[in-house]
Amino acid sequence: MQIAILLYDRFTALDAIGPYETLVRLPDAELVFVAEESGPVRTDTGALAMVADRTLAEVPHPDLVVVPGGPGQTSQMENEVLLDWLRAVDATSTWTTSVCTGSLLLARAGLLKGRRATSHWLALDFLAGLGVESTGERVVFDGKYVTAAGVSSGIDMGLALVGRIAGDEHAQAVQLLTEYDPQPPYDAGSPAKAPAHLVEEFRGKSRFILT
Amino acid sequence: MQIAILLYDRFTALDAIGPYETLVRLPDAELVFVAEESGPVRTDTGALAMVADRTLAEVPHPDLVVVPGGPGQTSQMENEVLLDWLRAVDATSTWTTSVCTGSLLLARAGLLKGRRATSHWLALDFLAGLGVESTGERVVFDGKYVTAAGVSSGIDMGLALVGRIAGDEHAQAVQLLTEYDPQPPYDAGSPAKAPAHLVEEFRGKSRFILT
Repeated sequence: MQIAILLYDRFTALDAIGPYETLVRLPDAELVFVAEESGPVRTDTGALAMVADRTLAEVPHPDLVVVPGGPGQTSQMENEVLLDWLRAVDATSTWTTSVCTGSLLLARAGLLKGRRATSHWLALDFLAGLGVESTGERVVFDGKYVTAAGVSSGIDMGLALVGRIAGDEHAQAVQLLTEYDPQPPYDAGSPAKAPAHLVEEFRGKSRFILT
Repeated sequence: MQIAILLYDRFTALDAIGPYETLVRLPDAELVFVAEESGPVRTDTGALAMVADRTLAEVPHPDLVVVPGGPGQTSQMENEVLLDWLRAVDATSTWTTSVCTGSLLLARAGLLKGRRATSHWLALDFLAGLGVESTGERVVFDGKYVTAAGVSSGIDMGLALVGRIAGDEHAQAVQLLTEYDPQPPYDAGSPAKAPAHLVEEFRGKSRFILT
């Protein structure tokens, strides 16, 4: 199956790499990084560029599409070339997916209307404002639409998709090979668990963080 | 502080991106991807290239160095240019670190002699053969040497380092912003937890997987 991961200026690297590192291990996967123009695409921090090997036009019918998030998502909300590509690939995709604020792009393209979906915890209200039933869950399946919460959640989404597509045992093999046995040194990975003052601080400047 | 992440042909993307996504959020971090030659460096799957912005010679004194692993590590074990760079940067680094089979390169450079360190679970015996006290722990601190287990463990190492360098609260803020609240859909991320027949199957072909 062909898997397309979308890149755009100022995306967040781990949003893309979590799904990549799991989905690329599907049997017969042909995984391609795509962008409006091929070549290096720089991440949100400016410290890294990843290469889009193909243009959007060169990948018209992926079986699975992944839309990462990141501060650069805001600038793409009126990019009709990108939104048209999302609508076109969704017409024939088996799975249409996103990580983090990538779900805002899917919603802006009109693909999540009335569906359940998730996003970065700071973006859940924005998502609801786009006509989506916005949930705080980490990975949400609604038919062929699969959305993941912030940044690192794409690893969990990728593994869940590998399980659905290739079976539980294949997904367990991928988890074992990538040694995904998380042992975070802190327990602050969600607004429900982190110190309240940090949550409030980020909420206060969410417009700055997300754009 | 300057952070250098080493790239080489056929490295594993998440090995590098886990530490990147956490360490880049250190206060005053200047993070650079380096390789023997600057330009695109392709990962183990062939499906992705990440750009090394600087050559090894251009980054002689990073404060923190990260060496990722991947099947391409084997070909670097006799690369004296790379091994000499590791020895040279280690002479002035504050932290010398690795993920996955990156620790085999640190060991080959002579930097882990008699120290406690870890690696991908399939590579722990190789590591012990290089004069290292090889442990199966996920993240190992031994003085300024910090090593992480397979692939995804670099996220845990990155957060632990952020905590040591910038304090617990800063690390918690990074965890919250990257929404690192792992919820793997399976519990098969280590040889102790995965189905035994999968563990045996991988052990049987470890030479193939790791090179």
